[in-house]
Amino acid sequence: MKRIDVCLSPDLMHLYDVQEKAVVVVDILRATSCMTTAMAHGVSSIMPVAEVAACEALRAKGYLTAAERGGEKVEGFDFGNSPFEYMSDEIKGKKIGVTTTNGTRAISLSKGAKTLLIGAFLNLSSVAKFLNQQEHDILIVCAGWKGHVNLEDTLFAGALAEQLTAKFSRACDSTLVAITLYHAAKHDMLGFLQNSSHVQRLKNLNIEKDIAFSLQIDQYDAVAVLEGEELVGLKR
Amino acid sequence: MKRIDVCLSPDLMHLYDVQEKAVVVVDILRATSCMTTAMAHGVSSIMPVAEVAACEALRAKGYLTAAERGGEKVEGFDFGNSPFEYMSDEIKGKKIGVTTTNGTRAISLSKGAKTLLIGAFLNLSSVAKFLNQQEHDILIVCAGWKGHVNLEDTLFAGALAEQLTAKFSRACDSTLVAITLYHAAKHDMLGFLQNSSHVQRLKNLNIEKDIAFSLQIDQYDAVAVLEGEELVGLKR
Repeated sequence: MKRIDVCLSPDLMHLYDVQEKAVVVVDILRATSCMTTAMAHGVSSIMPVAEVAACEALRAKGYLTAAERGGEKVEGFDFGNSPFEYMSDEIKGKKIGVTTTNGTRAISLSKGAKTLLIGAFLNLSSVAKFLNQQEHDILIVCAGWKGHVNLEDTLFAGALAEQLTAKFSRACDSTLVAITLYHAAKHDMLGFLQNSSHVQRLKNLNIEKDIAFSLQIDQYDAVAVLEGEELVGLKR
Repeated sequence: MKRIDVCLSPDLMHLYDVQEKAVVVVDILRATSCMTTAMAHGVSSIMPVAEVAACEALRAKGYLTAAERGGEKVEGFDFGNSPFEYMSDEIKGKKIGVTTTNGTRAISLSKGAKTLLIGAFLNLSSVAKFLNQQEHDILIVCAGWKGHVNLEDTLFAGALAEQLTAKFSRACDSTLVAITLYHAAKHDMLGFLQNSSHVQRLKNLNIEKDIAFSLQIDQYDAVAVLEGEELVGLKR
């Protein structure tokens, strides 16, 4: 039986070998929620890059650009890190370059996987459906916050793992931690997250609307998948 | 308000500064359960060492020696890693040198703390009582399994954190993960751990009796604390 592992922080990625695996990267607040929203609204591709300067340089190549550091939009970029910025007609058919504090790092560490998907509550069932139809071991990579484990990415890992347990073994302890956490929180995830220091920090940036939106399950069918250096819509 | 952090794996220790903190190291299966049992049965001190050879060298200095690797006793040593080995009169007043796969590494990474305590379910309330009477921030360090997060150490972190929340802030997400896990499992920890790959691996080594014993809460008052290079009984 193939297995599911959960990497609770990018700083634990040295424990996992992404080769031969289907990897799902998650950064619920808010990088992968934004990417999924953008894909659902017709963006043609998303280029995740590690550095702000590299992202800025993409503009000359015809990209729209998005940059977030420490939870805030970087000045001079087209977009920040709110899902609501990725819902307009303006992005349809466009390429976007993106850099964020945690999400793009988690993507970078996951390169070399058989498949690299972008996961969010917004497209949970679509991600699960794809994974249930493929034959590789699965690794869910939580972006966390500057190396620290966070609640919302762990919750997503649990929600996704639960949809895969009929076909994949969940023997790894981190997977059991995530599933248990999700069971405890699933009836009121927003309430559960109120205790989180990370969410408290984000609330100070006035993004409560973003948080509530990013916890909504199955708003979209679209799934972003890495093809070369860019994320594109998964073809089904 | 002083705070509690939980480091879910030794491989995340670079995120925490142990200076000025009271640190509790936990390796429920089985290093810190053994150390607590030995302390309760009158051992005079325990010297944790990283390497098997260094542990063996302690014999010439009059130490009894204990070594475990991969869950099994290393040949030629007086003791392995079962709490039941540390209950005899033989150890009373003796010094013991100990090396284990995960526990001694977590201790080594925690050196430099204001106070370094050894925690186990076996002495949970005594550890909590000491911590509630001191004024430093608290870091609970889970030994895990070769860098991976494990269930039993996370459960202990949750159980201990819960006893400290009246006086210490539990804003860190890892602490919330641990407390939530403990709430979900506390009425049947042994049953909960049956799903764990780590526990399955240990059961193959015929240590089910050790596991059941190590999950018992408050069997002992004794608490081991680091003094220089050695663990000694906490004086109260």
